[in-house]
Order: sequence, then structure tokens, then C-alpha cells
Amino acid sequence: MNIISENRAFGGRQIVASHPSRVCDCNMTFGLYLPPQAADGPVPLIWFLAGLTCTHENAMTKAAAQGWCADYGVAMVFPDTSPRGEGVADDEAYDLGQGAGFYVDATEEPWAPNFRMQSYILDELPRVLFNNFPLEEELQSITGHSMGGHGALTLAMKAPGRFSSVSAFSPICNPSDSDWGRKQFTAYLGENADWEDHDASCLMRVDGIDVPVLIDTGTDDQFGDLLKTEALAKAMAEKRVAHTLRMQKGYDHSYFFVSTFMEDHVAFHAEALWG
Amino acid sequence: MNIISENRAFGGRQIVASHPSRVCDCNMTFGLYLPPQAADGPVPLIWFLAGLTCTHENAMTKAAAQGWCADYGVAMVFPDTSPRGEGVADDEAYDLGQGAGFYVDATEEPWAPNFRMQSYILDELPRVLFNNFPLEEELQSITGHSMGGHGALTLAMKAPGRFSSVSAFSPICNPSDSDWGRKQFTAYLGENADWEDHDASCLMRVDGIDVPVLIDTGTDDQFGDLLKTEALAKAMAEKRVAHTLRMQKGYDHSYFFVSTFMEDHVAFHAEALWG
Repeated sequence: MNIISENRAFGGRQIVASHPSRVCDCNMTFGLYLPPQAADGPVPLIWFLAGLTCTHENAMTKAAAQGWCADYGVAMVFPDTSPRGEGVADDEAYDLGQGAGFYVDATEEPWAPNFRMQSYILDELPRVLFNNFPLEEELQSITGHSMGGHGALTLAMKAPGRFSSVSAFSPICNPSDSDWGRKQFTAYLGENADWEDHDASCLMRVDGIDVPVLIDTGTDDQFGDLLKTEALAKAMAEKRVAHTLRMQKGYDHSYFFVSTFMEDHVAFHAEALWG
Repeated sequence: MNIISENRAFGGRQIVASHPSRVCDCNMTFGLYLPPQAADGPVPLIWFLAGLTCTHENAMTKAAAQGWCADYGVAMVFPDTSPRGEGVADDEAYDLGQGAGFYVDATEEPWAPNFRMQSYILDELPRVLFNNFPLEEELQSITGHSMGGHGALTLAMKAPGRFSSVSAFSPICNPSDSDWGRKQFTAYLGENADWEDHDASCLMRVDGIDVPVLIDTGTDDQFGDLLKTEALAKAMAEKRVAHTLRMQKGYDHSYFFVSTFMEDHVAFHAEALWG
């Protein structure tokens, strides 16, 4: 692991690091905020999975999370959204290839050798983090934005018992029924794969989830038709999943929306983690 | 109007009164809590519509609302759930006739002469209240439980501009598709009536609502299958209605649930009323 930068922030440490990833067969970069409390021993960890076109940097610089993480004494990790580099497949579209990993393990060419973000987030990056930083492996929660909100929901359901709580900002909710999803699932998983096994609304309908759930989406989200919030809302109500879903009046899809409600989400996770 | 009783409560006045109702063609009884602030001038008013089998008395005695109303300086009215008395039609079932008015104006016999709860709540009782008590007519909000939660939602949509906010505890959400609804709509409105015009999920899908909405329902509600929360959840998300829907883990349909979250609902309405 290679520390690329470190900045003091809210009395703690904002770190950027890279490491060779066996899973993605390339170097991967991540941001990690350690609150002041980490100087005294391991702290809980919140995962923030970012959206389409993002790197490790977007939420780290624009989500206004560090101050709240310091207040509540929790770390936050900002992984990249896909493998990257010259030897890694890509597409000219903003929503396929590099920057658009969708948090699945691709089975189709040319993506299969590198695009294994599910295994990266659930298996490999945790080992890097817990081996190198003062983080409490038993106290993890997960959140994310847009494609990353979807990733937070699906990965929480795929790793039951791992995360104490899950939240999402403007999540893609039902990708197998959306243009934000069908194209990527076709490319990464193939037309005949079991897409429902990677779709938050479908997984929710079948498995549900037994940890606290908080969803925030803006009523004026410019991508509202692509998110399909209604499918997730229906699935959670039908399955009687304990949750809070809020549609926030006048907000759009941007990090201005994410930062506005970041305090609520950090407080929500802190309560689940410390409870 | 006849004052039946008055009790000091949280520094204010818990009143029970009756009045001859022209709309329901019988005497109607209601409870009204006036907070201490009402001694100095008009205060905002929250309507609490009760559920099946209830009178004016259930929420008044079991919802633990008065203390929060005093804290926030708002009044709360507890209307009865139907016309009552010897000359009023009834049914042996708990969910039809007296105690089960469903907040609609019946058009069918034998219910039509008395069962006009929509007009009673929206037209007649307001005049009684605003003519007799220090209440601010421009500052009203509405909530309710179960059948009354449904009533709060439907009446808020039928009187746009009247209520500054609407909330509901364990509301019936989609009565035209539930055994809590089809039977009553058949009896009161007739098989061929436009049931969707009295169904919260259908109205939400078509009209939506442009004031803050808060819904709380227990994951362990013993009547969850009858409530059809998923229909309302889907409709609000699809219509991009600004709202908060919470499914509260482990709670059932009782007033123990209502009283647990009453503080949140009074605070929610107070914010909308004073905002």
C-alpha cells in the first residue's frame, strides 16, 4: 500500500492511498478519513460508494462528510467506482466501463478480467483497510450516492451481518428495469444472467434486510425517471422492512443534495454502530 | 353546543363537547385539547381522525398527545368516527356502520341520511370549532390512525390549501383494494361509484399533495396486509411527493405505537404550521 497524500481535517487525517489489486488486476486508489478518535484506538467505519463518473475523490471533496465523522468518531472510506488504467477495458460512454463499475463482478468480455467491484468492496479492500488502519471490523455501515447508493443496498444484502446499517442518497433502485442498469448488466453480466440477483428492489422483495435503512432522494432529481425509487419504496413496504424513505422537496441529484443530508446519514449510522 | 366535561391537562384545557349536527342529522361529540397558549389568543389546530371502533375518546385518552400539544402551543381536536344514536343505521360488524364512517359521504341506503363524515369534518365541525374556541383557522394540520390515517390523507387531498401538513399512523392506504375498504365503499358508495376518488393511494397517484407528509407504520402491524402500505409508498415515490415514510421495527397497530411517535408528529406539524 502506498500513501499518496495526507491532510489534516477536523482534527483527524484525510488519507489517499493506492494498492495493487489482485481482484481488479490493476492499481486501485481510495480515500480514507480517520477521525481524531482513531488516534486512541480502532473506530467504526462507514463505506461511501460513489456514483457514475466518480473516482475516490468526488465524495471525499464534495460530500462534507469529514466534520460529521469527527463529531461522531467514525471513519469513512471512499473507494473508487471501477478499475482504471491503460490495460483496463473502457467505453466512450460516461455510464459504462471506467467510472461505472456498478459494484458487480463482470462475467463478460472485455470486462471480466478487471471489473470485479463486488469482490473488491466486499473482500479485498476490507483486508487492506483492516490490516493497515485503526478500524473496528465488527462495526461497519454502508452508504452511497446514485449508482453507489444502489451498490450500498445490494452489497448490504449480499453480505448479511456485515453492516450495522445501510443508507443511500438518490440511489438507483431498480436497474434491471432502467436505462441506468440494463445497458451495464447486459455488458457486464450478459443478457441471460440473473439480473435480479444484482437489483436492489428485486433483492429487497425476496430477501429484505434486517438492519436500519435510510433513503433520501430529491423530488426534483433530474434523473428521477432512471432511479425508479417507486420500485424500492413498494418492495420495502411489501416486505415490511424497517426503514425511513424521505423524498426531499426541491432537491436534485448533485452533491449539494448529498452534503445537505450528510449529517443525518452519519448520525443515523453512528446510532446503529454505537447502539 | 354543549360542554360535557372539561379537565385541566398540561396547563391547558381538555374539553368534551356535543352539538346538533345538521350534516349527520344527529348529535355529535368531539374532544378538543386547548394548550395553555390558547388563553392568550388563537392557536393552530391539528385534527386527529381516529380508526375503526373508536369514538372521540380513544385518541384523547390513549395517544399521549396533550403534553406535546402544550409544548408546541397547538390545539388538537378528536372528532367522533361516525354518526351515532338510536335513529342512526348500524351493522353488527365492527367495521361497518357506527364507529366506521370511513370519512366519506354515503350515497346508499340506509347510510345516506347520516353517514356524511367527509362533509362533517371538512365543513360543519370546523364552523363549530372556529366559532366557539380560540383557534387560528389559517393554521390547520391533520393526522389520524388507521381508518383515520386514511381519512387524514384523503381529506387533505380533497381540501387543497386547507392543511399545512398531513401525517398518519398506520394508515389504511388503498381501501379499494383491501377488505378494509371494499365492503365499506360498497355499502356507503355503491359498487359502481368512483372508489378511486376516496382512495388515498389512487388520489396520490393522480393529484399528489404539495404539503409535508409523514407516515409511520409498524413492521409488525397485525393488520399490515389490510393496510397496503406498499401502494401508497409506490404512489408517493412515483408522483415525487415530498414525504417521509417510516416503517418502525417491531411496532404493531395499537395506541402504544401511536403514543410512541406522537411527539414526532406534533413536532412535524408544528414546524409546518409555524414555518
